[in-house]
Amino acid sequence: MHGSLQPRARSERCLQVAASTAENRQDPERRPWSEREKGSRNMLRPMDSEQLREYGHRMVDFIADYYKTIESFPVRSLVQPGYLHNILPDSAPDHPETVEKVLDDVKTKILPGLTHWQSPNFFAYYPSNSSVAGFLGEMLITGLNVIGFSWVASPAATELEIIVLDWLAKLLNLPEQFLSKGKGGGVIQGSASEAVLVVMIAARDKVLRSVGKNALEKLVVYSSDQTHSALQKACQIAGIHPENCRVLKADSSTNYAMRPELLQEAVSRDIEAGLIPFFLCGNVGTTSSTAVDPLVALGKIAKSNEMWFHVDAAYAGNACICPEYRQYIDGVETADSFNMNAYKGLLTNFDCSLLWVKDQYAVTEAFSANPEYLKNKASQENLVVVDYKDWQIALSRRFRSLKLWMVLRLYGVETLKNYIRNHIKLAKVFEQLVSQDSNFEVITPRIFSLVCFRMVPTDDNDEKKCNVRNQELLEAVNSSGKLFISHTALSGKIVLRFSIGAPLTEEKHVKEAWKVIKEEASYLLRK
Amino acid sequence: MHGSLQPRARSERCLQVAASTAENRQDPERRPWSEREKGSRNMLRPMDSEQLREYGHRMVDFIADYYKTIESFPVRSLVQPGYLHNILPDSAPDHPETVEKVLDDVKTKILPGLTHWQSPNFFAYYPSNSSVAGFLGEMLITGLNVIGFSWVASPAATELEIIVLDWLAKLLNLPEQFLSKGKGGGVIQGSASEAVLVVMIAARDKVLRSVGKNALEKLVVYSSDQTHSALQKACQIAGIHPENCRVLKADSSTNYAMRPELLQEAVSRDIEAGLIPFFLCGNVGTTSSTAVDPLVALGKIAKSNEMWFHVDAAYAGNACICPEYRQYIDGVETADSFNMNAYKGLLTNFDCSLLWVKDQYAVTEAFSANPEYLKNKASQENLVVVDYKDWQIALSRRFRSLKLWMVLRLYGVETLKNYIRNHIKLAKVFEQLVSQDSNFEVITPRIFSLVCFRMVPTDDNDEKKCNVRNQELLEAVNSSGKLFISHTALSGKIVLRFSIGAPLTEEKHVKEAWKVIKEEASYLLRK
Repeated sequence: MHGSLQPRARSERCLQVAASTAENRQDPERRPWSEREKGSRNMLRPMDSEQLREYGHRMVDFIADYYKTIESFPVRSLVQPGYLHNILPDSAPDHPETVEKVLDDVKTKILPGLTHWQSPNFFAYYPSNSSVAGFLGEMLITGLNVIGFSWVASPAATELEIIVLDWLAKLLNLPEQFLSKGKGGGVIQGSASEAVLVVMIAARDKVLRSVGKNALEKLVVYSSDQTHSALQKACQIAGIHPENCRVLKADSSTNYAMRPELLQEAVSRDIEAGLIPFFLCGNVGTTSSTAVDPLVALGKIAKSNEMWFHVDAAYAGNACICPEYRQYIDGVETADSFNMNAYKGLLTNFDCSLLWVKDQYAVTEAFSANPEYLKNKASQENLVVVDYKDWQIALSRRFRSLKLWMVLRLYGVETLKNYIRNHIKLAKVFEQLVSQDSNFEVITPRIFSLVCFRMVPTDDNDEKKCNVRNQELLEAVNSSGKLFISHTALSGKIVLRFSIGAPLTEEKHVKEAWKVIKEEASYLLRK
Repeated sequence: MHGSLQPRARSERCLQVAASTAENRQDPERRPWSEREKGSRNMLRPMDSEQLREYGHRMVDFIADYYKTIESFPVRSLVQPGYLHNILPDSAPDHPETVEKVLDDVKTKILPGLTHWQSPNFFAYYPSNSSVAGFLGEMLITGLNVIGFSWVASPAATELEIIVLDWLAKLLNLPEQFLSKGKGGGVIQGSASEAVLVVMIAARDKVLRSVGKNALEKLVVYSSDQTHSALQKACQIAGIHPENCRVLKADSSTNYAMRPELLQEAVSRDIEAGLIPFFLCGNVGTTSSTAVDPLVALGKIAKSNEMWFHVDAAYAGNACICPEYRQYIDGVETADSFNMNAYKGLLTNFDCSLLWVKDQYAVTEAFSANPEYLKNKASQENLVVVDYKDWQIALSRRFRSLKLWMVLRLYGVETLKNYIRNHIKLAKVFEQLVSQDSNFEVITPRIFSLVCFRMVPTDDNDEKKCNVRNQELLEAVNSSGKLFISHTALSGKIVLRFSIGAPLTEEKHVKEAWKVIKEEASYLLRK
């Protein structure tokens, strides 16, 4: 299985050079990997540029070889819980081991335990894109390794983030208030979970400043039952009382979009009960089925009730850089904040979640902390510079805008649009294959590159049996190692999710995946 | 300045090969970087293994060259706010640009805007370590690009994290309850800010479950005034009322360690007032001056008042892998959670913050959310597998244990200990230089590799003037570009922080830094 992950000739030479150099070289400071070092003359030099060059090249080849052979691995790992514990030592080694030995362990012990997200046959969850440009960007981020918590800690890290988020805002045709030139602006968070937590805290504190800080127990959050679990987690962390989280039922009558009249009713009821509606989360492209909430109608209700309106477009926001899909975020002008994950569709390696807010001061008011040891001239001359530490949960942060900037420049916007369009086209192909087969049905209309489908109930129309069979199919397909899909539940039906978006996926992979699914289904039906 | 960052011969050849290949090759699917692609035959292949190889090698050389020339850059960037806005375009390019052009922009536009954290002359804040092993680890994390939110999403990512955190716990000689075999365990967070937030939420929810959820306004947090601002931020996010945050004064009489009697008094007063003490944060190595709180005494008070006791050893925890420094976390056995940042001293690139808890269920109770689309066989057979999504704020997570594992194996524990000891030795050298100069004084005894010092007041003994002069010195030194130091305030005194820990720092850099500081000071004194 790992045949072609053997070191190639060039790398092998590199390593031999490195090894012999390490043994023969007279200058002890150049031998940091050697076990034979002793005494003060042999001071460790953990960041030797020539060593980084030699072993960096070796690692590039290792990773390139991984991608070359990626289709040979079972997509979902087939290991059993605890497998690694049984094959790794109980404690860290006292003395250095060789790169060769460690890479060999990666091949034989780690790779079999991976679920290969970059495999062209990975159709589960939503994609997490890797790309050559994203990889180069991450290398550079890691190489420079600066921590840009405040402007002065690395001005370029802050300024590039502002610029690139403005670029993206323009691509998405977001309203001007989200751009950096006014009181709005964008920031890179790790993931959509952090993004929604940040804006919820900002909204919570804003309302508590006006109604009094003991009113927390009166604050109410609204969303549809299709909203990502990140919202529930944010509520838990923000201390919103569970009974004040209105999870509004959505069903097939709206393709699982939130119904504004349900929202309006809930809000009115809560106000009548003396509660305070303060946060509404709208979805563009839910995780279960890519449902799109009616933003315009929701925004109106949010505005007339002075609620913070957050739009979570973590997945589908990517497609909205294409003019023909921009319609799905129509109404974003009524939102207070908007979020999309560049790692889901824009070829930028995880993590990279883009958050825009109209009122940056609501965020910085909630998140700023200015101890003496972080004070500096630039930050104290207020308003002149942005200190992103005040826009996020943590203090420290990586220079993530660098990879997004490199992706945008090395691929160009047109290529990125076509990349997304291609996945949607492939999803249409899959959708058609499913709908032509009488044993299957497509559940909810496909909008982006996710197809929700299932095996139809058999003669007795027993939904429970049907659910069990679909779960059996899911397990059979995934256990084959040939592809990996995931599932969800919609109105009580177990639904299979076929999500296209891995960078290497082509039409042949989609067709082959369908063949495997059909075969496993036939086998189940014959049983 | 950027002379040796010019492409080397080998890379240039690589690039030329790539360019001519892209233009001449007949198979259009192999030309994803070309602007001339059109039509369906030219489908984009954003993760072409050979392209990754070619450009990956190019990037390795770029980064190796950066390290080779890192001393030629001003350590703290000398750019003015807004510099980048003036030299970058207003929008993303429609069509691909070449790697060469982008790297040229990195050299001419980004590098001048960086504060070079990896420079051997970076002595500000606390270090953020880079290393060859850490770099290789990050490359591999980025290359594999798996998202291990639950066990099944990549079993190796979860299992390696458990194993490596156990390794570290053993190196630190943490009590058994922090190891994974019982109900405790370790987890990698992004930073110490996330770590303290996670445990505070866990503690908050645990106490609210027993006293009722409307008691939030009664909850009280305790720490010394030397505690990192991350605690204040965590309190803000967790909704702890600001007037319930007891910030206990610490002064030079205890070298800025918390005084247990002050804590006991505050706790008693709060209980009498009907409040509920629930969270105590103890420090091992504060950010201002590496103060170490008396953990044993604090733990006793925490225990007898049923408070969650968190120990923040973000910086100094690293040194505690050396037996001679282990004493500074004596008393950790009384803690409920313990945190240290491997990126501060253990040669693991940011981000990588290690958190251990004795009661994992307190954490998962607060952070778990289990939507249908994440359910899977392994997780449902409870207790068998760990799903780290329930141990952190976000859902998604990178495979960060991989780099820590590689660092531990490629350097070995003894080398890491000596690496830390060497920085402490260099700090002693600097401390001596300072104390031998009558214009300067060391403030607070040095314990680890941070030296807190200042210019002494002149004849009139005016502390205010002295503060101004030290701030002038700080600015003069940092504006020179020759080194970067930071400052803090202790008992109203402006204090300069000389923090040693960059991977390339040697004795000559420390001595040269002192020379610059002395020269700038003489100049100020002559004025």
